[in-house]
Amino acid sequence: MVSITNSQLRQLEITEEVYAKILKIKAFTFDIDGVMTDGSILVSESGDFLRTYSAKDGFGLRMASMGGYKLGIITGAHSDTVEKRFKFFGFGGADIYLSSKDKIADFNKFCEKYGLKPEEVLYCGDDVPDAPVLNACGLGVCPADAMEEAKLCADYVSVFPAGARFVREIIEIVMRAQGTWNFDVSEYEKSY
Amino acid sequence: MVSITNSQLRQLEITEEVYAKILKIKAFTFDIDGVMTDGSILVSESGDFLRTYSAKDGFGLRMASMGGYKLGIITGAHSDTVEKRFKFFGFGGADIYLSSKDKIADFNKFCEKYGLKPEEVLYCGDDVPDAPVLNACGLGVCPADAMEEAKLCADYVSVFPAGARFVREIIEIVMRAQGTWNFDVSEYEKSY
Amino acid sequence: MVSITNSQLRQLEITEEVYAKILKIKAFTFDIDGVMTDGSILVSESGDFLRTYSAKDGFGLRMASMGGYKLGIITGAHSDTVEKRFKFFGFGGADIYLSSKDKIADFNKFCEKYGLKPEEVLYCGDDVPDAPVLNACGLGVCPADAMEEAKLCADYVSVFPAGARFVREIIEIVMRAQGTWNFDVSEYEKSY
Amino acid sequence: MVSITNSQLRQLEITEEVYAKILKIKAFTFDIDGVMTDGSILVSESGDFLRTYSAKDGFGLRMASMGGYKLGIITGAHSDTVEKRFKFFGFGGADIYLSSKDKIADFNKFCEKYGLKPEEVLYCGDDVPDAPVLNACGLGVCPADAMEEAKLCADYVSVFPAGARFVREIIEIVMRAQGTWNFDVSEYEKSY
Repeated sequence: MVSITNSQLRQLEITEEVYAKILKIKAFTFDIDGVMTDGSILVSESGDFLRTYSAKDGFGLRMASMGGYKLGIITGAHSDTVEKRFKFFGFGGADIYLSSKDKIADFNKFCEKYGLKPEEVLYCGDDVPDAPVLNACGLGVCPADAMEEAKLCADYVSVFPAGARFVREIIEIVMRAQGTWNFDVSEYEKSY
Repeated sequence: MVSITNSQLRQLEITEEVYAKILKIKAFTFDIDGVMTDGSILVSESGDFLRTYSAKDGFGLRMASMGGYKLGIITGAHSDTVEKRFKFFGFGGADIYLSSKDKIADFNKFCEKYGLKPEEVLYCGDDVPDAPVLNACGLGVCPADAMEEAKLCADYVSVFPAGARFVREIIEIVMRAQGTWNFDVSEYEKSY
Repeated sequence: MVSITNSQLRQLEITEEVYAKILKIKAFTFDIDGVMTDGSILVSESGDFLRTYSAKDGFGLRMASMGGYKLGIITGAHSDTVEKRFKFFGFGGADIYLSSKDKIADFNKFCEKYGLKPEEVLYCGDDVPDAPVLNACGLGVCPADAMEEAKLCADYVSVFPAGARFVREIIEIVMRAQGTWNFDVSEYEKSY
Repeated sequence: MVSITNSQLRQLEITEEVYAKILKIKAFTFDIDGVMTDGSILVSESGDFLRTYSAKDGFGLRMASMGGYKLGIITGAHSDTVEKRFKFFGFGGADIYLSSKDKIADFNKFCEKYGLKPEEVLYCGDDVPDAPVLNACGLGVCPADAMEEAKLCADYVSVFPAGARFVREIIEIVMRAQGTWNFDVSEYEKSY
């Protein structure tokens, strides 16, 4: 198994301060559009909004779930398909907050449910409604193609745009830094 | 909230003349294919034409609606899914003119309905059938990948191609210039 | 209406010989995958193969149909959705040859149906099964991302890859060279 | 028919050692996500995971099947649509191992079924779960955009990212090196 050294993490332009924040993370929370996807929304014949996810991101989420990290989705989206993607994902699935308008309120609910302090929870967002959570969470992260308002509130901006490997990269950075990025086939089988 | 200064608007290669036009805008109208989308059309099993929209553009449209701007869609497309995307969008939704062949006629209907002068209405188009409206409206705008016939009639050509952030950029330029680009969570909740 | 001069056509690296061929064209025929689309095939839940077309290409096809050019589709594809896209397209629609294995046979059927000589029919293809038709037709054209076997048989290779503006460019080159690229709103309405 | 000479194969940065492995290949096996596709997964209204394949890759697979090569799919995916794409593909179709967690076990089943030694079977993969098979097979191949863990186990990394021409290139390299890349229309008709 490849592992990233601390010096390599610093090559990612991660400061000492951000690195200290990374080490505290116990949960990953995400916006959907422009974070888990490239922001594209396909409107189906019946008017449902369909989204396209990344298999590489999905593998990262599965690894995080297997590694004991809690997963949360906080999104303005209100399609059943978001639940179909994430509800039974990995061990225990993700907590999903659909139709979220005031994201900070839902972020706090997530923290309370698992007894987590905000500084133990990473949040990935890309646009204006994400700004308050990016400020309040333990590690605010943006994809490369996030809107400026979100980037200004982020601790770390990825080199990857959303939709392909952005989520994967963030999960790997945290898990490698904490030494938890390890693949075990027998455990992996149980995560489906 | 970040705001664009007048000098920054000029960095976008917006002339004094175009800037004066921007300040008069009270409504946004749009073609669909190649403007709200990248021009891709997925033909479904039943033969419906499905389109892919941008969440970042969608947030901009919601902000415009919340800010009191009228929204209109004038398109040759004739799929119910266009109505499903935009009919109840934001406050009051968008006026939708489907199967529009003579777009200038539909543009005039939109202006009459809201008592707007053509110079108070912005229009975004990308191809030959849009040229007359780009000429007649208050501010004709094209995405970077518009056809030459459309660009020749436009007041402003965006650096963004259609389908991702073109619509968002245009809305932000107008709203920032007019000082109306302000995000209020409690209002935002009502726009869904 | 913008029009391309002969000298501009030559800037497209079109030789005198190819230009002479262009002037004889009375019909456009096309492969689907990798020509009318970027080659992507979405497999639906029921196993149908769904394709994504370009609105800009579609406008070009409509203009060609309005201009009196015959349209043909010769494809190995065998989905009803191809007919749903093209059967009633423009004036009279396109002739569609699905599940075409021996494309030259279907190309000849198309020529016979309309009493056209092969040199009056343009064909666009991108892969090995297209090579015989690219050789036999009046003007063999490939998108920029065609396979080498197809390009070797083509009279002209576009600067555009398939799926966005390749078909549009070819139609415009022919119609502008022949002076038939003219837009009339009242006629256009009838083409839907 | 174009054919690649040995010297051209070496231009692809294929070493003598890898070239010797290429000459032994009698079967092609593939992961799906990030190999046969670009890794994108569209979640449908009913929660099925839909994938987008490449027509150019498909032609290569058909040629391989016509040329007598066995085809296998070994994937963690568990959608019926994978079977709909590949079960009746070419002559005899592909062997499909869905919901594969321990990929090496399924790879061995495939070898046993056809009495093939591992060194006679090529495998294409792109991520951590593919690493053991990339090591065990006769020729481990990655697309350009594979994850580092997979690339480290590969004999050859393509210049093409997955989803468009990666699979096609690999099949052509093997079949051209073995002199089996020949197109016969009458045989081709039977492969549908």
